[in-house]
Amino acid sequence: MAEPRQERSRTTRRRLMNAAVECLAELGWNGTTVAVIAQRAGVSRGAAQHHFRTREELVAATVEYVGNEQLVELRERAAALPRGPARAEPIARMLLNLYTGPMFRAALHLWVAASTDEALRAVLVPLEARVGREVHRVALELLGADESRPGVRETVQATLDLARGLGLANLLTDDSRRREQIIRQWAQVLEPTIGVPAPT
Amino acid sequence: MAEPRQERSRTTRRRLMNAAVECLAELGWNGTTVAVIAQRAGVSRGAAQHHFRTREELVAATVEYVGNEQLVELRERAAALPRGPARAEPIARMLLNLYTGPMFRAALHLWVAASTDEALRAVLVPLEARVGREVHRVALELLGADESRPGVRETVQATLDLARGLGLANLLTDDSRRREQIIRQWAQVLEPTIGVPAPT
Repeated sequence: MAEPRQERSRTTRRRLMNAAVECLAELGWNGTTVAVIAQRAGVSRGAAQHHFRTREELVAATVEYVGNEQLVELRERAAALPRGPARAEPIARMLLNLYTGPMFRAALHLWVAASTDEALRAVLVPLEARVGREVHRVALELLGADESRPGVRETVQATLDLARGLGLANLLTDDSRRREQIIRQWAQVLEPTIGVPAPT
Repeated sequence: MAEPRQERSRTTRRRLMNAAVECLAELGWNGTTVAVIAQRAGVSRGAAQHHFRTREELVAATVEYVGNEQLVELRERAAALPRGPARAEPIARMLLNLYTGPMFRAALHLWVAASTDEALRAVLVPLEARVGREVHRVALELLGADESRPGVRETVQATLDLARGLGLANLLTDDSRRREQIIRQWAQVLEPTIGVPAPT
């Protein structure tokens, strides 16, 4: 009987975290209370508070969960890509489109709120550092890039910072056409870093 | 007598707009009312409302004002730079540091607020498009870049999107050391676009 209960508990947590992303993306940090998230998730407030005592706790779990989901998805999609230089453009596309959805929108609300909220900042900064390092590691893996070669580390970092800048440019308007031009150009910047991708 | 009064009026507007940047950067959009800005500027609320009827109006004027100030500063600093390929690194530094101060922090609060506030969005989107085009034009000028060459336009766009991504990375922590490494690498991406800079 333990197994189904654990499974149910995991499902509830996942529903709360998915609802948290939606609430943040649509309502911002101020509008995102545990009560609002619980309602959106179809979970009682008591059950929500059993899993997460505060919204900071819920949001911290959500940032990790979302970060991991994105990495799993990246790795899965990368497994289908060609090897060698032809890999540069699809990888540029995957990475530069990484921050154009509701998850980035949600994260942006959190970052901006944290810039004027000490408690939230204390939770977010170490989490974001960890998530950032993981994304960097996966980007290296997908490219098969050798970080000991000069400039490779910075090129991969620039790719992810550019991706976040493009996420920002996509916040208020649909920027996908302009972004696609940049992606094609970016493939040429990435091409020299392409090596043998790690097996996925 | 008309001249000093106009001058006084311009000074009051400038004080209100500078105070608006400070308030947005420190308090966010929700905390930034015309009353709060007026107090910070040392201007009566009545006088503030004489110049700007709503905070949307004040913020719109501020975005344009700040955008123009930044361009003037960029052009002035660029006038002192060397010609030729040696220009790449100082220009990379100028452009990639562009969004690391309180002005970007203020703008970020606005963008994020606009993503859930239709009225603010309607004001900001055309303004930001105009400011963005201007920054792009000045970046081309500083580089002396020829946009008719393939890839140049996208490289300059990517530079400014990267700059915004780096601004984001600098929001919650001091990212200047990591950014400096990226700047040096970026100088190599910009070098082939360097041409004859426009006279400033």
